[in-house]
Amino acid sequence: MSAAALLEAPRATPLLTTADLHASLTDPALTSMTLLNEITGDYPDAVSFAAGRPYEGYYDTEALHRHLRLFTRYAEQERGLCEEQVRRTLFQYGPTKGIINELVVRQLQTDEGLTADPEAVLVTTGCQEAMVLLLRALRRDERDVVLAAAPTYVGFTGAARLTETAVHLVPEGPGGLDPDDVARRAAAARADGLNPRACYVIPDFSNPGGSRMSLADRKRLLRVAEEHDLLLIEDNPYSMFHDGQGRMPTLKSLDTAGRVVYLGSFAKTAYPGARIGYVVADQPIARNGLLADQLAKLKSMLTLNTSAIAQAAIGGLLLENDCSMERACAREAVVYRRNLRALLDGLAARFPQDSGVSWNVPAGGLFAVVTVPFAADDEALEESARRFGVLWTPMYHFYAGTGGLRQLRLSYSVLTPHDIATGLDRLAGLVQARAGRG
Amino acid sequence: MSAAALLEAPRATPLLTTADLHASLTDPALTSMTLLNEITGDYPDAVSFAAGRPYEGYYDTEALHRHLRLFTRYAEQERGLCEEQVRRTLFQYGPTKGIINELVVRQLQTDEGLTADPEAVLVTTGCQEAMVLLLRALRRDERDVVLAAAPTYVGFTGAARLTETAVHLVPEGPGGLDPDDVARRAAAARADGLNPRACYVIPDFSNPGGSRMSLADRKRLLRVAEEHDLLLIEDNPYSMFHDGQGRMPTLKSLDTAGRVVYLGSFAKTAYPGARIGYVVADQPIARNGLLADQLAKLKSMLTLNTSAIAQAAIGGLLLENDCSMERACAREAVVYRRNLRALLDGLAARFPQDSGVSWNVPAGGLFAVVTVPFAADDEALEESARRFGVLWTPMYHFYAGTGGLRQLRLSYSVLTPHDIATGLDRLAGLVQARAGRG
Repeated sequence: MSAAALLEAPRATPLLTTADLHASLTDPALTSMTLLNEITGDYPDAVSFAAGRPYEGYYDTEALHRHLRLFTRYAEQERGLCEEQVRRTLFQYGPTKGIINELVVRQLQTDEGLTADPEAVLVTTGCQEAMVLLLRALRRDERDVVLAAAPTYVGFTGAARLTETAVHLVPEGPGGLDPDDVARRAAAARADGLNPRACYVIPDFSNPGGSRMSLADRKRLLRVAEEHDLLLIEDNPYSMFHDGQGRMPTLKSLDTAGRVVYLGSFAKTAYPGARIGYVVADQPIARNGLLADQLAKLKSMLTLNTSAIAQAAIGGLLLENDCSMERACAREAVVYRRNLRALLDGLAARFPQDSGVSWNVPAGGLFAVVTVPFAADDEALEESARRFGVLWTPMYHFYAGTGGLRQLRLSYSVLTPHDIATGLDRLAGLVQARAGRG
Repeated sequence: MSAAALLEAPRATPLLTTADLHASLTDPALTSMTLLNEITGDYPDAVSFAAGRPYEGYYDTEALHRHLRLFTRYAEQERGLCEEQVRRTLFQYGPTKGIINELVVRQLQTDEGLTADPEAVLVTTGCQEAMVLLLRALRRDERDVVLAAAPTYVGFTGAARLTETAVHLVPEGPGGLDPDDVARRAAAARADGLNPRACYVIPDFSNPGGSRMSLADRKRLLRVAEEHDLLLIEDNPYSMFHDGQGRMPTLKSLDTAGRVVYLGSFAKTAYPGARIGYVVADQPIARNGLLADQLAKLKSMLTLNTSAIAQAAIGGLLLENDCSMERACAREAVVYRRNLRALLDGLAARFPQDSGVSWNVPAGGLFAVVTVPFAADDEALEESARRFGVLWTPMYHFYAGTGGLRQLRLSYSVLTPHDIATGLDRLAGLVQARAGRG
């Protein structure tokens, strides 16, 4: 019986309304995102700058089998497991912290110059679960709040809603968070009787802002964290996708005071279908091991251990690439670099200085932000899709109603340069139509 | 640097204590379970009746590859996807509700005679995530409470702790929950100004109680749910493992009023390493689709979509078994039946009627409960492991401090009949030593 048929069945009065369910389900931001997905679904032939998905041209089903075999061979040869133990590792319940922690640690050393203890690593069901675990750990009651940049990644906002954690927004500029603003916001929260516990930050090519923090600001932010007793939740899904000028040191690698909890994801550097992420939480807890141990206890109540099958697939991919994800995603990085160039050149070619249209120039990542001379709201998006055949994400989604009303996010990760050119032509049509109307 | 080294590092004062973290982390039940795991880890050579793990003798690494190929062939041939779409299905972000919903629906029809709409199914990261999602949906504030049997499955207790949902316990007998008790408990909660939202129940071979509800009680429980406006959260991981006399109808299949939310798991019938479970939530929500749609929205903030790689592995296993998990786990069911027989016979041979030792006679599942003439606490367990080389689970863990103090749970799923005999000999030694001391 279909959903529609159920609704028309004799039992016509539903038992429940959304008022009977958790408040996060009627949050305006969630409703907006649902609408965005519906519009996207309604116009499948539009050029979509909306999807925040990684490039999929190099996905390879045979590689999955090869990676699984590489992992089982590693388990036998490097970890000395017998065949029965290997089977148990793949198929049985396993350690909550994960089975590829040693490989993750090698990757952090290889790619980031970070020395981590495997015991400080918790492998999670995507980075999203890591955010939920962290916020669940830190949010004891309504006085515990966190800081985050505005605009904010929607996944973090969602994790905050689920755990009923209030997020205090700190405005983000092209250079990312201003540490002085973070300090002021933390002090203001404390003055209000609240406990600012942590600040969430994507230092490299933030989603959606596309900002990158300078080395000086990274160091200042670490000092602010110490002074205001904050943890820094560093989320690093995009640093591999720089413009060719190389990477900046992570906050974690600069951290000498144990303030940084580091979130890693294989969704962009490998593929999202595994749903494998991790958190490095090496903060000691008095008489109770590390923060990673406490997060693992929470995870045992949330999803137990992360899928061993999925971990093995990512483990094999790591092994095939000498535990360098920079190497593993080198081809994708080239695509993103080419596309970012095409997007920025294409914008410059279509929108002269006096057009009222401007944009940021990110040094990497998967997103750019365009400012337009009209309200970039859901209604404008609907017209954009229907009349012009081009989709984008309204930036106000990422501001919790506090900004971004004339901005749109363009994601260029799954497009070809030809798609980008077509999409920008269509966007120019929308701008012309809307700008005339003010 | 090891955890121990970190604790001894110059930065000797930890930033955090457990008092800085969520209260669930200092819950006595969680602490007890951690202690249980430590004792288990300290005595690897003991015969363990403690592990609630499925039999692992039929795990097969090559089958994993075969199942993945079966799923991709199905995606191409039955769902008509091209190779690019199949790759996208495996590797890209995917629908939050899942990619094997059609196969799950076929399985429910084949094994349970249940007709479900694929849109009412949400595939989850193990059944544990489904419990968290359900409780998160139902728990709006502290007045929303749920009922559950005492003794209760620890996974449900954990999900309740994470979502800060109060659990009101209803005593469970050999015939499972008494519907009149459920009615009384719901009425009492309502009289206290609370909203009893749901009752969690494992009608077939409950963990840890090993009870099975009669058909008459199932029907009465459904009526109580209607009369007291409760949802029934039916968890069914074990019904395949009956004693050979066949299965009872699920609550879901008897439900004509839309009261039952059905939780399914592939952890016991297939294997835990995939971490694939699901929930059937076909309750219409006024103007907002089905409850499954609302749970999917929450899931998009918790873990996004469930690992497609893991879903594909389980999907292929379903395909190989004509979507019958009863067929897929037939060999395991034989093992469990044999082991239950060996356990019950072994208990009878060692503990005469006047021994002060008694036990239940479950008609299936993976667990039996033994009552002993001494406190079956953590200290007794420690002695049992150290002096006698046998491990079990203290039942008081499952009662939130309200009972089970002289009971222990024996899990027989991963043992051979020889192990069972050895373990029972050792248990008899413990009983003799302890009973003398009262």
